[in-house]
Amino acid sequence: MRFSIASKCKDTKARAGVLATARGEIETPVFMPVGTQGSVKSLTPEDLEAAGVAILLGNTYHLYLRPGLNVIDRFSGLHAFMNWSRPILTDSGGFQVFSLATLARITPEGVLFRSHIDGSRHMLTPEKVVEIQNRLGADILMCLDHCTAYPATLHEVEAGVALTTDWARRCKTAWEEQQKGALFGIVQGGGYKDMRERSLHDLMTLGFPGYAVGGLSVGEPKAALLETAAFTLERLPEESPRYVMGVGSPEDLVALVSMGADMFDCVLPTRNARNGSLFTSSGTVNICNAAHRFDTGPLDPECPCYTCRNYSRAYLRHLFTARELLAYRLNTIHNITYYVNLMARMRKALLEGKFEAFKKDFYAKRQM
Amino acid sequence: MRFSIASKCKDTKARAGVLATARGEIETPVFMPVGTQGSVKSLTPEDLEAAGVAILLGNTYHLYLRPGLNVIDRFSGLHAFMNWSRPILTDSGGFQVFSLATLARITPEGVLFRSHIDGSRHMLTPEKVVEIQNRLGADILMCLDHCTAYPATLHEVEAGVALTTDWARRCKTAWEEQQKGALFGIVQGGGYKDMRERSLHDLMTLGFPGYAVGGLSVGEPKAALLETAAFTLERLPEESPRYVMGVGSPEDLVALVSMGADMFDCVLPTRNARNGSLFTSSGTVNICNAAHRFDTGPLDPECPCYTCRNYSRAYLRHLFTARELLAYRLNTIHNITYYVNLMARMRKALLEGKFEAFKKDFYAKRQM
Repeated sequence: MRFSIASKCKDTKARAGVLATARGEIETPVFMPVGTQGSVKSLTPEDLEAAGVAILLGNTYHLYLRPGLNVIDRFSGLHAFMNWSRPILTDSGGFQVFSLATLARITPEGVLFRSHIDGSRHMLTPEKVVEIQNRLGADILMCLDHCTAYPATLHEVEAGVALTTDWARRCKTAWEEQQKGALFGIVQGGGYKDMRERSLHDLMTLGFPGYAVGGLSVGEPKAALLETAAFTLERLPEESPRYVMGVGSPEDLVALVSMGADMFDCVLPTRNARNGSLFTSSGTVNICNAAHRFDTGPLDPECPCYTCRNYSRAYLRHLFTARELLAYRLNTIHNITYYVNLMARMRKALLEGKFEAFKKDFYAKRQM
Repeated sequence: MRFSIASKCKDTKARAGVLATARGEIETPVFMPVGTQGSVKSLTPEDLEAAGVAILLGNTYHLYLRPGLNVIDRFSGLHAFMNWSRPILTDSGGFQVFSLATLARITPEGVLFRSHIDGSRHMLTPEKVVEIQNRLGADILMCLDHCTAYPATLHEVEAGVALTTDWARRCKTAWEEQQKGALFGIVQGGGYKDMRERSLHDLMTLGFPGYAVGGLSVGEPKAALLETAAFTLERLPEESPRYVMGVGSPEDLVALVSMGADMFDCVLPTRNARNGSLFTSSGTVNICNAAHRFDTGPLDPECPCYTCRNYSRAYLRHLFTARELLAYRLNTIHNITYYVNLMARMRKALLEGKFEAFKKDFYAKRQM
């Protein structure tokens, strides 16, 4: 994997780049839709490609438990299993163990847990998460890390950073034996700047092809999230791709790109789509709203997506109100396209040296 | 609308025909997927066209209640509302009033009922169902009829036939004022042959562009269904299209085509798809079955559908087990394609004079 910067903003830390992988080039900044269980909910790979999606995120925890690696091995990886040929980034599974599994218990060796599906016992170690991600055929792998809850004491965060560093070292060793995809380190440290600095120092000393900012969007106030992100992002190596995990709203993404972030994943566009909350250039639309009942116009006249080109707000409202399955798909196509296009518009503005003007226009329109 | 017969079977009453409408030609025998609420559950119009669907069925009862005609009027009909350009047949709404609405009450004038959605009071009369179907922009309209429950006494069925005839007369009068689509009469009469004969006689005396066999698949044994269908179908005019409503399994459709039926609708392929029950040339597959867990092969190697061309049984099983929304869509695409192809295969066999051979092969393979 090679990362090159195509253009830098003169006013902010934003940059446009290209992440070259064996499965194709990814233009950054990039948004990665979440395909938790080997599917971005309700969409086919063709829907994703039509929306301009360049890379997906797959969840190791879910795929490891169901369908299981012995199934995915028959397909030599997740790509053939789900019929997706572009790059995939997989997480380590650690975050989901703490949010979904029962009886998760941390040992120096790894994380012991019971499956949320059938209660079966499992252990994820740094070595094992690298093996799993390699068997999934990930183009980008993530280190096993320890994300502390919010709020957390300095002592808890310090222990989390130490564990994250130790596991990152073991992940790197395991990964170096195979080096199939690119392994990213994850910076932890909660809201404590000295802990963030320690984690940054530890990981950069180990050295990774890319770095992620972890431990965000875990319940902290928005201002704290952005402050921690800015603090961490500006200390990461200029030449490496920087991935902010699990964030966020369109406004967050523009702010984070301004701080120098290159990659994002978030369930917001897909989950909100299934709840009828749709992103448009002029604000967020609740499609249930009776105001749309007779509206023959598209959801967003500026949007080039399949949904906006072919259907009216009235039809989308009807499908959603009637709980028709097609509602989830049409809404998801739109929200994913909105996120992908937001990234593309930022990239274009960066290449044209107009990022500040783009930002002003973006925030003004979204608040209409 | 014009119906022409292209080929007749020499051994059975089966025939291949063409139903020419203002929105295009429909080759018969034809299966019409059910788009109850302005959507064939989980599919886009493009999915339906790719599956070879030539005509959809829309449910008047549902669309009248939600989104309501004042919404659909803004689109000048259902076609533009749901973005479907091929023909649509709408039912009269009468059947759903009895199966879904609360407090349905029959008067000579029409049917009084309360909406199953919000309890609001409504009345459907023969004149009103013609008006609604015209406002929906139906290419084929159905008369309001009275379908007696099973079992029913001779007295009940006799009253139902009388009402069906009276309402058919009033529907025809209302329709003749506008003549937008083609109005079909519906033969009732339960399992009583003399009542079927009376209903046939009454409707054929009134005269319609096409005829439907109603009152089937309401709980009667399969043998009774087929016997009543055969009795009714062979008494319908040779030159008119014959539509068997709400039936049935692939085996039923082959039997009914042999009896001279041309058109079908049924929720079976779409509903079963959402329950993981998938039709294939070699029998019906329950995709949940553990036998498919490691199966890298397609659901049906003989099937040309998007699902069979791109996905494995293992992936379909995984999606269904994980309750992924994509499961419903991929399964529905397959089952609809199976039904459409079954019709196309029967038509081809009829045109080639090989219908009897097709039937033998079909039943033998399905029982494998």
